[in-house]
Amino acid sequence: MPPDEELRYPSPPPIDSTATTDDEAAWVWAHIKAEARRDAESEPALASYLYSTILSHSSLERSLSFHLGNKLCSSTLLSTLLYDLFLDTFASDPSLRVAAVADLRAARARDPACISFSHCLLNFKGFLACQAHRIAHKLWNQSRKPLALALHSRISDVFAVDIHPAAKIGKGILLDHATGVVIGETAVVGNNVSILHHVTLGGTGKASGDRHPKIGDGVLIGAGAIILGDVKIGEGAKIGAGSVVLIDVPPRTTTIGNPARLIKGKEKPAKHEECPGESMDHTSFISDWSDYII
Amino acid sequence: MPPDEELRYPSPPPIDSTATTDDEAAWVWAHIKAEARRDAESEPALASYLYSTILSHSSLERSLSFHLGNKLCSSTLLSTLLYDLFLDTFASDPSLRVAAVADLRAARARDPACISFSHCLLNFKGFLACQAHRIAHKLWNQSRKPLALALHSRISDVFAVDIHPAAKIGKGILLDHATGVVIGETAVVGNNVSILHHVTLGGTGKASGDRHPKIGDGVLIGAGAIILGDVKIGEGAKIGAGSVVLIDVPPRTTTIGNPARLIKGKEKPAKHEECPGESMDHTSFISDWSDYII
Amino acid sequence: MPPDEELRYPSPPPIDSTATTDDEAAWVWAHIKAEARRDAESEPALASYLYSTILSHSSLERSLSFHLGNKLCSSTLLSTLLYDLFLDTFASDPSLRVAAVADLRAARARDPACISFSHCLLNFKGFLACQAHRIAHKLWNQSRKPLALALHSRISDVFAVDIHPAAKIGKGILLDHATGVVIGETAVVGNNVSILHHVTLGGTGKASGDRHPKIGDGVLIGAGAIILGDVKIGEGAKIGAGSVVLIDVPPRTTTIGNPARLIKGKEKPAKHEECPGESMDHTSFISDWSDYII
Amino acid sequence: MPPDEELRYPSPPPIDSTATTDDEAAWVWAHIKAEARRDAESEPALASYLYSTILSHSSLERSLSFHLGNKLCSSTLLSTLLYDLFLDTFASDPSLRVAAVADLRAARARDPACISFSHCLLNFKGFLACQAHRIAHKLWNQSRKPLALALHSRISDVFAVDIHPAAKIGKGILLDHATGVVIGETAVVGNNVSILHHVTLGGTGKASGDRHPKIGDGVLIGAGAIILGDVKIGEGAKIGAGSVVLIDVPPRTTTIGNPARLIKGKEKPAKHEECPGESMDHTSFISDWSDYII
Amino acid sequence: MPPDEELRYPSPPPIDSTATTDDEAAWVWAHIKAEARRDAESEPALASYLYSTILSHSSLERSLSFHLGNKLCSSTLLSTLLYDLFLDTFASDPSLRVAAVADLRAARARDPACISFSHCLLNFKGFLACQAHRIAHKLWNQSRKPLALALHSRISDVFAVDIHPAAKIGKGILLDHATGVVIGETAVVGNNVSILHHVTLGGTGKASGDRHPKIGDGVLIGAGAIILGDVKIGEGAKIGAGSVVLIDVPPRTTTIGNPARLIKGKEKPAKHEECPGESMDHTSFISDWSDYII
Amino acid sequence: MPPDEELRYPSPPPIDSTATTDDEAAWVWAHIKAEARRDAESEPALASYLYSTILSHSSLERSLSFHLGNKLCSSTLLSTLLYDLFLDTFASDPSLRVAAVADLRAARARDPACISFSHCLLNFKGFLACQAHRIAHKLWNQSRKPLALALHSRISDVFAVDIHPAAKIGKGILLDHATGVVIGETAVVGNNVSILHHVTLGGTGKASGDRHPKIGDGVLIGAGAIILGDVKIGEGAKIGAGSVVLIDVPPRTTTIGNPARLIKGKEKPAKHEECPGESMDHTSFISDWSDYII
Repeated sequence: MPPDEELRYPSPPPIDSTATTDDEAAWVWAHIKAEARRDAESEPALASYLYSTILSHSSLERSLSFHLGNKLCSSTLLSTLLYDLFLDTFASDPSLRVAAVADLRAARARDPACISFSHCLLNFKGFLACQAHRIAHKLWNQSRKPLALALHSRISDVFAVDIHPAAKIGKGILLDHATGVVIGETAVVGNNVSILHHVTLGGTGKASGDRHPKIGDGVLIGAGAIILGDVKIGEGAKIGAGSVVLIDVPPRTTTIGNPARLIKGKEKPAKHEECPGESMDHTSFISDWSDYII
Repeated sequence: MPPDEELRYPSPPPIDSTATTDDEAAWVWAHIKAEARRDAESEPALASYLYSTILSHSSLERSLSFHLGNKLCSSTLLSTLLYDLFLDTFASDPSLRVAAVADLRAARARDPACISFSHCLLNFKGFLACQAHRIAHKLWNQSRKPLALALHSRISDVFAVDIHPAAKIGKGILLDHATGVVIGETAVVGNNVSILHHVTLGGTGKASGDRHPKIGDGVLIGAGAIILGDVKIGEGAKIGAGSVVLIDVPPRTTTIGNPARLIKGKEKPAKHEECPGESMDHTSFISDWSDYII
Repeated sequence: MPPDEELRYPSPPPIDSTATTDDEAAWVWAHIKAEARRDAESEPALASYLYSTILSHSSLERSLSFHLGNKLCSSTLLSTLLYDLFLDTFASDPSLRVAAVADLRAARARDPACISFSHCLLNFKGFLACQAHRIAHKLWNQSRKPLALALHSRISDVFAVDIHPAAKIGKGILLDHATGVVIGETAVVGNNVSILHHVTLGGTGKASGDRHPKIGDGVLIGAGAIILGDVKIGEGAKIGAGSVVLIDVPPRTTTIGNPARLIKGKEKPAKHEECPGESMDHTSFISDWSDYII
Repeated sequence: MPPDEELRYPSPPPIDSTATTDDEAAWVWAHIKAEARRDAESEPALASYLYSTILSHSSLERSLSFHLGNKLCSSTLLSTLLYDLFLDTFASDPSLRVAAVADLRAARARDPACISFSHCLLNFKGFLACQAHRIAHKLWNQSRKPLALALHSRISDVFAVDIHPAAKIGKGILLDHATGVVIGETAVVGNNVSILHHVTLGGTGKASGDRHPKIGDGVLIGAGAIILGDVKIGEGAKIGAGSVVLIDVPPRTTTIGNPARLIKGKEKPAKHEECPGESMDHTSFISDWSDYII
Repeated sequence: MPPDEELRYPSPPPIDSTATTDDEAAWVWAHIKAEARRDAESEPALASYLYSTILSHSSLERSLSFHLGNKLCSSTLLSTLLYDLFLDTFASDPSLRVAAVADLRAARARDPACISFSHCLLNFKGFLACQAHRIAHKLWNQSRKPLALALHSRISDVFAVDIHPAAKIGKGILLDHATGVVIGETAVVGNNVSILHHVTLGGTGKASGDRHPKIGDGVLIGAGAIILGDVKIGEGAKIGAGSVVLIDVPPRTTTIGNPARLIKGKEKPAKHEECPGESMDHTSFISDWSDYII
Repeated sequence: MPPDEELRYPSPPPIDSTATTDDEAAWVWAHIKAEARRDAESEPALASYLYSTILSHSSLERSLSFHLGNKLCSSTLLSTLLYDLFLDTFASDPSLRVAAVADLRAARARDPACISFSHCLLNFKGFLACQAHRIAHKLWNQSRKPLALALHSRISDVFAVDIHPAAKIGKGILLDHATGVVIGETAVVGNNVSILHHVTLGGTGKASGDRHPKIGDGVLIGAGAIILGDVKIGEGAKIGAGSVVLIDVPPRTTTIGNPARLIKGKEKPAKHEECPGESMDHTSFISDWSDYII
């Protein structure tokens, strides 16, 4: 079988991105192992890597804990310590695995450059940063703040993804490319959201308290967009690449520009039907907006 | 004492961010050790890290030299070499410690997500990159350019913060989040400046010579702002997130947009009183600028 | 000789950036070794680094393979494996060396902060990421996709430069500062292009197929510019810093702003003569465009 | 409390080296933690080490697994893999902990240079090699021979202690100094045996099958002694330093010399009462053996 | 197939330990790969190790260069440098491979604890030290003495096997257990010699010149034996464990004791027929020597 | 100059091994740097190593601290910590440098295989273990026992040399080959002593107190010799390889065998004139002792 051919299973379970179950996790994990086995066979130079990261492990959680532990460790935060911490946290909260599976499926479904689940698991810094964030978030909620912040710091150093451990992130998240994403302490991100690189969900000053954006379900945030303050981005909204948004955005509308405007104006903005966080349609609005032409 | 409770000292010295003294450095270092001790007790998994980075050291300079040496080392630039270099440089120039203390206080005062001095010392890549830059800058001024540039390269690899070793940076600096900050060779940054992530202080061509921005005291530069060329940003100015600035900005005014405009126009721009580099107020101008509404 | 004085050779060969030859490669490599020797003598603390990375090697390819192998390795992808892979790939395709030499000369000619070839070779993450990308691209074209993607992932982690291994990149490329550059799967970049940091050549949705920009020869793309979709940027065009471009740009024109506009308008845009990818002139258009004033 | 003062507990449980129980393990572990805490306080430079190896762990097994994982790992056998393996093996067989506790107590009781349990746990290569051997032995008995042998190889590289994973080792073992100990595949070592460095329990040829010594309970084997072949060393025997023994040795007798002879001759050898493996009396026989005088 | 079952090939070539050929090397390498594949399948935890050390390599020399490079490297002698050096040396002298194959076959034939070729290749420090020595010896003969001695030092640190790079070592060598073996500068070791651990082939003073033992073909030297000075050990001699030999030993005789004597006396010593270096018979002389009884 | 030719200085100071002075240390250090420079020029592959270990350092103490720090570090005892500790200890006690210089000269004078001072400094595990021991001894005497013992453990792991930190070791010491040397807690070793590998200066039981050998000045102890108990080895005595000594040995006499006897008997032992610890004459006694013949 050529290395990039689709792996096919006799009976894939019905996949429903809103109800990830044990069956689904098992199915994804089986898929990952099959992909890794195929790749190890076709590429001996990579086999050692694939065995150590995937094929020697008995579950997705163990594989992830190993991979993250080795990526995030440093000379003063040993891999064994992190591995232990990640294993324990996964064991204590099954929702972490559910979210990881949903994120894997999101990457596979939405990113045409994602050629397999194992590709995402091993190589997508956005995926890895997001899983590590969820562990930091769990520690934060257990009042283990210094540990959560040390982990936060490692994620920011290693992946250049800076998500405050207090930020609430949904599932089915795609952080595409991911470099430079910054998500502040009181931000909330819904389910099935897609966020491109260099996106900022930032605060508005030095006062503590609620000061970061709230992103609704199914939102798509384009590369380099900056959203500041405790603003609400309505569900299914599309924030165009490079938009600078400081005010609420209605559901299923599209913003563009710096300062950001709504397509067709704020009084009667164009409404789209689909969920851009899943469709990943970045530019279809161009035809709607004659001024955009260079 | 719960881990996130404020540590209180019997008699904190009067703190004056413009006159950092030995007393103040001692006070900050005592604070850092007390925080680290508290965190080590509440979180045994982190105690080893806290002892190696903070609690085993006799001074802030030694702690910083150790931490930076271990963060910036590579297989070809050993930690012992860097540690040595950092220790020697701190010993030769007391102003490096003064600036580090001022930066620690800036983070603590301006960033609501900074919950302790030790949090900043250990985890803020902007803080760490800035201290390492100051050492590289010192080497540059001693005509040890190849070493300064090797260090520059490591800072850019490890922290994704790219400050040319020749750039002059004041004290009381906050590089918040810091990923993607680029500051060019002939840039000058004043005191008490706050710079968010993805900010560029860039040049304008391939001619050598003075070609980068000059940032006045107390300026706030929002996320993703791009300032190009030998332009002057007046003291206390506020550069809005995502602004692209190619021309001088008057003191205590606010720019916004790409291309950047002044709030209330260039003829009679709105002037604010406070020092945004310290107040960190990113968005209060919205009410002044009706067009901003989406 | 002071460390930053220009090294002079008795008879430098005529240099022609469109026809890099073995002679030229030999000349550049001799230059690099002379620079490294000079720096090792003036800075003993750096001599070990210079010997291991440059002076102990018999060719530019071996030096690059060593340096990249040690930079990109991880605990699960050993330096020896990567070194081997890089050596083999350089040996199998001489055009990789030609492109590396062209890139070194581009950095030296266009970036006033680049004080020597060895400075670029050792310290420029954009240069290093680009050479590593070319190897990944070669692997991709040999249908060794999992290995190409693993390498892609390491480049993105280590340099914060994310170039899909399928992307076609010309020679004489300068990725200046480079942090945050994202170049998608079906992008094509011509020769003698200069790309600043935070530049995105992104896609437009989740459909696979041709969906990324095509950048002509000699283009200059300013910091933070975002170009999305299968659009054509004509040769010699200049994309201003922070521009967001979703539509074709004619040759030798300049765009600015978000949304991007052409200087002097889209009907009769101002045309410049020179090749901005080589001249690196970011801001001379300001005088042409009165609206730009703040 | 001075660092070398004996730690005292209010009610130490009655200690019986032939019946190690959970209580005893708990008592020893509490002792170890108290020692480490005392040492961390008196020696900040060592505190990080003590926290990472002992104080951050919840049990002796976890501490040992961490310490051995980090000591025995290599660039191709990662610490996380070994840590996992050791944790799992300890969890699957409680007798491993019992044996470790008995060995700790043996070192503390018999070696006057052993100043604390934690000293043995952290620093005695004989102790560490013996615990790692027990794990390798367990793997061997589970028919995981390649893994057992890889571990065997690491123990031999790191500690210069070479115990074949098939060898059966009792508990209450002291491998004093330990460098150079070699114990072959079919060797059996009883309980409460003390073995000095450079001791060989070797085979006699290239035939497979039972070919190594059987050491009875309570035997003391002096430095550099060589015992070859399927011979029986009777319980409580004392093998003098440098003895070369190829024949059975009766219980409670002493051998000396090369070739080895019994004190007082083989017909009526002197018999001693005590258990030399516990008393560690290496030289009291001198007075019994006039010929020994130089 | 159970993991420890003998691997069988359809037509193993006739094996003749005195005439190692390319065919034989290919046959051994095929065997090693088959063993590693079998073990990787039966033991996923070890598969990564087996792929990186054996299965990803195209030849025995590459596998050995990789494995030795990773074992012998240090923070100041990088694995890539050693790997390169080893590859080059193997390529320049085919006799190094021939000797490695002969040593692999010697271990497999003579050591009942050696259960496969791959077991020896990966885990036998004596085998690995011997191959690394041959490379150091080659460098020594090329007048690259500082490099040869640096390698010598690493071998002694890592394997506790100290063979001076000038020493001449034959092929078909078994260094069993190997810890503590010391072989001096002017020593010569013939073919098909077996040397146990702690054996010394030492010098006799501080004068330079020929001052170390000459060991004939087929000699067996037991554990802990010490042979000092420029003495000749005749072919097929057997040096008993712990013997201290300062005088020539006739061919096919056996020494025992300290000071060493010949079995049956020096006038008419017992002569044995076989080649003990291959038969590994350590103790059959006991029946010949009544005095040996304890 | 060929790499192994003797380096000559215009005016070497008069060298007196009993009165090491600052001048002598400077002379030795200058010699070491000249050797390293010569070797770096003749062997580019080693230049990086030589610069990092020797040529980048300003003194012998710094070079040694760096080299030992990198050799003895582990994942839980970082090189920076050890480097710091070694630098501080050298600075606090000048006699450590004096002893190091005396040891370097001893190796150079007595060991014909020692071809340069730098060879000894970099590669002789006996030299390195001895210097590290002196630091551990200093710590022990400062009541920093846990740290001294941790260092002791690392020396034993890395060099297979086990010297209890309490043992008193003179200067002008040669630990030749060194693997397996064991020196117990209450041992005392005089000046100008030479000790071969596998030598034990061991204790006699489990009672604490004075229980290890006292070795006089100028003693030579051959490979594998075992000296046990609080016995006195008179100055200038020679302990033959493999001797097992449990009783005092008179000055300037020679022991041989196991059990050890004096050459010419204990009543009228042969006395030699020279100092064997310096002459390194291991075997001249053979002619005096007819029984030794095999």
